[in-house]
Amino acid sequence: MRRILGFLFGRPLATYEAKLEKIGPVAGVPVFGLDALSSAAYGPEAALTILIPLGIAGLPYITPITAVIVILLSIVYMSYLQTIAAYPQGGGSYTVARENMGARLGVLAAAALMIDYVLNVAVGISAGVGALVSAMPSLQPHTLMLCLGILALLAIVNLRGMREAGAIFMAPTWAFVACLLIAIVWGIARSLASGGHPMPIVAPPKAKAATEAVSAWILLKAFAGGCTAMTGVEAVSNGVPSFSDDKVKNARITLSLIIAVLVILLIGISAMVRAYHIVATPPGQQGYQSILSMVLAAIVGRNWFYYVSIASILSVLVLSANTSFAGFPQLCGIVARDGFLPFSFSLRGRRLVYAQPIYVLAALSGLLLIIFGGITDRLIPLFAVGAFLAFTLSQAGMVLHWRREKGHPASMFINAIGAAATALTVLIVIVAKFTEGAWMTLILIPALVILMFAINRHYQRLGREIAARGPIPLDHLERPIVFVPVDAWTKVALKALRFALSLSCEIKALHIETGERTDELRQRWEEWARKPAEASHLASPELIVIKSPFRYVVTPIHDYILLQKDRYPNRKIVVIVSELVERRWYHYLLHNQRGEALTALLMLSGDPQIVVINVPWYTKVD
Amino acid sequence: MRRILGFLFGRPLATYEAKLEKIGPVAGVPVFGLDALSSAAYGPEAALTILIPLGIAGLPYITPITAVIVILLSIVYMSYLQTIAAYPQGGGSYTVARENMGARLGVLAAAALMIDYVLNVAVGISAGVGALVSAMPSLQPHTLMLCLGILALLAIVNLRGMREAGAIFMAPTWAFVACLLIAIVWGIARSLASGGHPMPIVAPPKAKAATEAVSAWILLKAFAGGCTAMTGVEAVSNGVPSFSDDKVKNARITLSLIIAVLVILLIGISAMVRAYHIVATPPGQQGYQSILSMVLAAIVGRNWFYYVSIASILSVLVLSANTSFAGFPQLCGIVARDGFLPFSFSLRGRRLVYAQPIYVLAALSGLLLIIFGGITDRLIPLFAVGAFLAFTLSQAGMVLHWRREKGHPASMFINAIGAAATALTVLIVIVAKFTEGAWMTLILIPALVILMFAINRHYQRLGREIAARGPIPLDHLERPIVFVPVDAWTKVALKALRFALSLSCEIKALHIETGERTDELRQRWEEWARKPAEASHLASPELIVIKSPFRYVVTPIHDYILLQKDRYPNRKIVVIVSELVERRWYHYLLHNQRGEALTALLMLSGDPQIVVINVPWYTKVD
Repeated sequence: MRRILGFLFGRPLATYEAKLEKIGPVAGVPVFGLDALSSAAYGPEAALTILIPLGIAGLPYITPITAVIVILLSIVYMSYLQTIAAYPQGGGSYTVARENMGARLGVLAAAALMIDYVLNVAVGISAGVGALVSAMPSLQPHTLMLCLGILALLAIVNLRGMREAGAIFMAPTWAFVACLLIAIVWGIARSLASGGHPMPIVAPPKAKAATEAVSAWILLKAFAGGCTAMTGVEAVSNGVPSFSDDKVKNARITLSLIIAVLVILLIGISAMVRAYHIVATPPGQQGYQSILSMVLAAIVGRNWFYYVSIASILSVLVLSANTSFAGFPQLCGIVARDGFLPFSFSLRGRRLVYAQPIYVLAALSGLLLIIFGGITDRLIPLFAVGAFLAFTLSQAGMVLHWRREKGHPASMFINAIGAAATALTVLIVIVAKFTEGAWMTLILIPALVILMFAINRHYQRLGREIAARGPIPLDHLERPIVFVPVDAWTKVALKALRFALSLSCEIKALHIETGERTDELRQRWEEWARKPAEASHLASPELIVIKSPFRYVVTPIHDYILLQKDRYPNRKIVVIVSELVERRWYHYLLHNQRGEALTALLMLSGDPQIVVINVPWYTKVD
Repeated sequence: MRRILGFLFGRPLATYEAKLEKIGPVAGVPVFGLDALSSAAYGPEAALTILIPLGIAGLPYITPITAVIVILLSIVYMSYLQTIAAYPQGGGSYTVARENMGARLGVLAAAALMIDYVLNVAVGISAGVGALVSAMPSLQPHTLMLCLGILALLAIVNLRGMREAGAIFMAPTWAFVACLLIAIVWGIARSLASGGHPMPIVAPPKAKAATEAVSAWILLKAFAGGCTAMTGVEAVSNGVPSFSDDKVKNARITLSLIIAVLVILLIGISAMVRAYHIVATPPGQQGYQSILSMVLAAIVGRNWFYYVSIASILSVLVLSANTSFAGFPQLCGIVARDGFLPFSFSLRGRRLVYAQPIYVLAALSGLLLIIFGGITDRLIPLFAVGAFLAFTLSQAGMVLHWRREKGHPASMFINAIGAAATALTVLIVIVAKFTEGAWMTLILIPALVILMFAINRHYQRLGREIAARGPIPLDHLERPIVFVPVDAWTKVALKALRFALSLSCEIKALHIETGERTDELRQRWEEWARKPAEASHLASPELIVIKSPFRYVVTPIHDYILLQKDRYPNRKIVVIVSELVERRWYHYLLHNQRGEALTALLMLSGDPQIVVINVPWYTKVD
């Protein structure tokens, strides 16, 4: 077992090894930026997919939509730069909201973030598989199985711990950024050379004829979908404690790098889409091709560069889910320490990672993938609500933070703008995407909040119940009355009786009447137990024979003990149950399990006065 | 739960009510004779099915085959009359073989009988369903489901206990006998009136053309199949203790009645088959019709009498399986008391029946029905081997019995003839039916014998291991050293500590180092535990802090205790594990289960020096 664990998850790490796992910006961009950067692969596509009904006439609208998204992104970036400085201990939206706006809104932010993390895993993987099936259309029918396989792989990698995970992710991220930038620069060059009308090397699929005219409503929906291009920028602020040395500086550099690259990618993609007249294909159907695949094929053709680029896109998208595997457990740990999630969520496992949240995250995102068939487009509406609700709460919290801390008015202003802009976005997303899935988050988030408060209430009540102040009470420490069920005069019974004699001087053996064996036991008891004990000036153990007309054994003993409890209200009652422990599991069938049954019955009665002691007899018989 | 049990299985019966369940010949014939009598429904058919390839030319051979079977049956009858007298305590073949030929052959007889009983259930039910689908051909595709449904019903009826079971079976058996006798007498009368060439009212299906010529081999196979007409006659000798008052006389009367009726039925059926030219139909196929169905239809037509008769045949065949439900548990009980089966098989349940063997019987016969698709003909080969092997061993045992007891030479002679005749039959069945399934019993029976001896060896070794003679040793009865794992200064911990103080004067609290909480606990321990205990002149409980670099909690405590064990080799080591017992199952997730884990680890180490005591804290928090 240990070997299997070791092979899959690596050797256990000691607490003092925790520091070694800290990272700088070069590793920070892939680990905390994958999510934000890879959003470029599905954000613009989410907007373009909404524009499909407009046909080729929808294309020009991608420019203003992208512009609004970039402006919003800049606002959010400014806000998070301040958050990192103000909260170097990490926790992001949750910590900020909780500290500045109280437990209720903090837990709301946590719930929004948790749902956001889960969706980020599902969307990252499904979009990655979308890129894969764009390059290899024959894999399209296996979309869901590919998604689930990748999810399992990710979970295992993350249970190994983050340092190695960071190393795995470094190369593909930089390759992804390089490929896209090269393609964009090359595309712009070709576009300029051709006077703004470049010929695609591989022509994108023909746009379907328009079925709708443009309307504010469809543009709003496209914007709401495109907003998901911004998801994941909060990851850095949640993960500040993971940075080395000057945490704040390193985190800020990392965030700036991420945002800069992301903005370039978003603008570049929208420019290329227009230049090459690329319209989205219907998702989840045979013939689906991702926007980036069409852009790359148009600029460079389906050559080796195309396939390298697609491989890097697949890698980063799939690994972008890793942002969640880094952030979700850390968030759960913080929330659990505050008592709003099971305490075990805050325990780091054998590889210094919070193991339980990783399982939860994998399970929930797997469920989402199954429900939505691994189709990115269907997951987008749920995704946007959680992400922007968390942004809003975080920035609203920062406003209050600056007011309380009497910070610079400019800081407060930046965060106020951020809060207002993201709040507006949440509203737009909810309205525009309501019927397409946003309604689910409106149920899930409050449900999660209620659950978390219920957990907190449970821990608080329990804490009050078991709280002890002051010295240990030393009254009523008489030795207990000990009952020993005895079947026959065997070594098993003698072991239990000897243990009873070492604990107390009031011992009562309980025996169920069974005819001959009872007479034999009575006789032996007199000779071999009572007389020797008296001779040794020990208290004489008493044999009590109980009749059982219905041949039951366990219940009469149980009932007798409950009666004795009432007879000696101030004494502890100890029941010593001797049990045969078989060496082989299949011997279980050969022996009665009355010991276990009696133990279970007495435990179920839940009486604090009764203590059951199992004295096992480990048989050597095979 | 109790209510459901009561509804299904009736109220529990006290041991003194056992006598009321005893029966006389009028109830004895249905209860112990159903199997033997109902054999008339499948025995002749088994022979006739083998003769199908001979076509209409095979018919005359049924007469000599029936004659041989009746002679064999008479021999077996005579033998069993003697067995009943010699063994009024019951147990049949097993008891006789074991007492006279030793444990090995006794267990062999038991194994043969057990397999025989299981097959009797399967064959009885499948043949009954065969009668049903003869009358209602549309049910033929549902053969297996009908079989399993009936099996479940039977199991429940038998778990209620035998008296009521006997009452249920009385009417159908007598109806079955009456119907068949009336039909046979009517058939003979019509045959005589028509000068030996009666016209069938409903003509049986035309016989297929002959595909084989008659051979000694095919007649031998037909005889081997027909022999199953004799199965079940041993049931009375197994069940002698169930008879009231003069057990032997009542049992003998019952057996004689059963044999007389059976012989009349067998001869009558073979006569009718010949007179009406009835040839068997291929079993398990659409168009299958049982021999008795064709006989009845030919003699009386498909009128109300036909349907009443089929209903009675269905009832007795199905209920004939009940012979096994009476005999199998009784046999298992006897064998289990001899230590060759799990001891729990010998315990009578709440309704005075041996409950466990009933479950085993139902499960095994259900399995057989599923494997063989509920087709009687496929079960016949397995059936014949077990039955005749048991006959042989029983009668061989009787020969030795008379020699030892110096009984009448005639008695010994009768049993010797019986033993020789049945032994010869076993050989014929094995050879003739080898490839059709008899080989299975040749594997199953030795496997069962090996298993039963293994069980016996286990019990004997265990008995020797735990056997205790002489007085209880009273040395080394010092109070134990008590270890109490303590997480924090809570009421839960205090409860465990107080219990420890009541047991011993050497108490060591074990705590895993966790930073702040540890310092707090150290301080409180000094003030609130050590000082008050010293002030009260009690032994001072010691706090031992254990470091755990890998953040494990359970294993360091476990390892520490194992070390202490070596330090105090002659002392009992008690570990008091305090555990939070949640009120709701879903609270399980909210609390660590370290107490359970530690208990399990210490139990697994299997050290007789260590005793684990769980002191539960029953929280009142919802």
